[in-house]
Amino acid sequence: MKISDLQKKIREFVRLRDWEKYHDPKNLTMALAGEVGELLEIFQWLSPKEAKQVMKDPVTAKQVRHELADIFVYLLRLSDKLQVSLEEAVQEKLIHNQKKYPVHLSKGVATKYNRLKTK
Amino acid sequence: MKISDLQKKIREFVRLRDWEKYHDPKNLTMALAGEVGELLEIFQWLSPKEAKQVMKDPVTAKQVRHELADIFVYLLRLSDKLQVSLEEAVQEKLIHNQKKYPVHLSKGVATKYNRLKTK
Amino acid sequence: MKISDLQKKIREFVRLRDWEKYHDPKNLTMALAGEVGELLEIFQWLSPKEAKQVMKDPVTAKQVRHELADIFVYLLRLSDKLQVSLEEAVQEKLIHNQKKYPVHLSKGVATKYNRLKTK
Amino acid sequence: MKISDLQKKIREFVRLRDWEKYHDPKNLTMALAGEVGELLEIFQWLSPKEAKQVMKDPVTAKQVRHELADIFVYLLRLSDKLQVSLEEAVQEKLIHNQKKYPVHLSKGVATKYNRLKTK
Repeated sequence: MKISDLQKKIREFVRLRDWEKYHDPKNLTMALAGEVGELLEIFQWLSPKEAKQVMKDPVTAKQVRHELADIFVYLLRLSDKLQVSLEEAVQEKLIHNQKKYPVHLSKGVATKYNRLKTK
Repeated sequence: MKISDLQKKIREFVRLRDWEKYHDPKNLTMALAGEVGELLEIFQWLSPKEAKQVMKDPVTAKQVRHELADIFVYLLRLSDKLQVSLEEAVQEKLIHNQKKYPVHLSKGVATKYNRLKTK
Repeated sequence: MKISDLQKKIREFVRLRDWEKYHDPKNLTMALAGEVGELLEIFQWLSPKEAKQVMKDPVTAKQVRHELADIFVYLLRLSDKLQVSLEEAVQEKLIHNQKKYPVHLSKGVATKYNRLKTK
Repeated sequence: MKISDLQKKIREFVRLRDWEKYHDPKNLTMALAGEVGELLEIFQWLSPKEAKQVMKDPVTAKQVRHELADIFVYLLRLSDKLQVSLEEAVQEKLIHNQKKYPVHLSKGVATKYNRLKTK
């Protein structure tokens, strides 16, 4: 299913419940952050090794899937409201980051400043 | 572009820079939360009305697009690592939420417990 | 009660339960962020006006108090582990911000860049 | 310096700049979350071992102190606005958690549900 189709489904879900009025960008950003907080809570006390194996436990795996879904729902909703194409934004950002992090300078650089993204 | 194609592009970006070793689920969740923090900073002092018009200012609009892209990149990356299909997870969650929030009970309910998602 | 006394109490609470091993700075920062996520969830769908009156409802007031406590507990714990004095750090930051935001330039400036803090 | 004295200082800082109007509970919670996001960014790519030694590098140590200060400033400000005593709230919460997590049941329990706090 395309991103725009998912957004359409969510839009309809919201419209039917008359929740549109709550979905301004401030509120949706808060809701997005709240969901990410729930994902953090799943991982916070796990060792890196335990975190990598989190999907092997069916109960936790289901929780993780639900939280990822919740995060994506609010991200889709927010970008729908702001009329930002997520696909285009990501592709633009990758081009931007290719310039910012040339392979020969970034390769395996183990500093904390080594990121996937640019400020 | 399909979600799986975006994930493939990001995977390749990471592989070329040998950043795979940093991308465990704990770290990626922290990075995702850090990006959401940057989006919060854009909106934090705006009134709800100003927040709705944020895309009318080209400078802020570009910032918003970049932050949405950063958030999506880490969400794609994390779900790729955890082998969760974001499309499927969202569709499952919407079905779940349709039961949890039946239209006749949820319509326009203006409480703080009125959410798009379920705990 | 002094900040250092609160930290001592929390340290003892943790020691008795043998939870010290989970409390490294990464984990504590994640836990802090998770608690802030719960506070965001309380406020996310409220209008600014409703948010201001949140302490008038005893049930929500209690939730808010609990979340503020949780956030403070992890902040105290983290700064204890990192041996940072919160009082001193705040006082240093206020001096820093006084230079960064001189009154005559900052007064009532209604831009989104108008912050209490400096990057 | 007492918590209430720190709050008084911050209140005065804000009053002089006429920033009071931005400081409603929604906005302050967003600002608090934004600052926690900056702290997450410091730790996100560090190994647990590196994270423990973060204060040994003077540049990063200063960043950490500044972020902890920013977080505390907004927490102090928010609790001041909501008229919540942070000391009392923490002490109440610790009593609550002592009941919730009796030592004999909680000792060294290495599950992800093992937390310092209660939902």
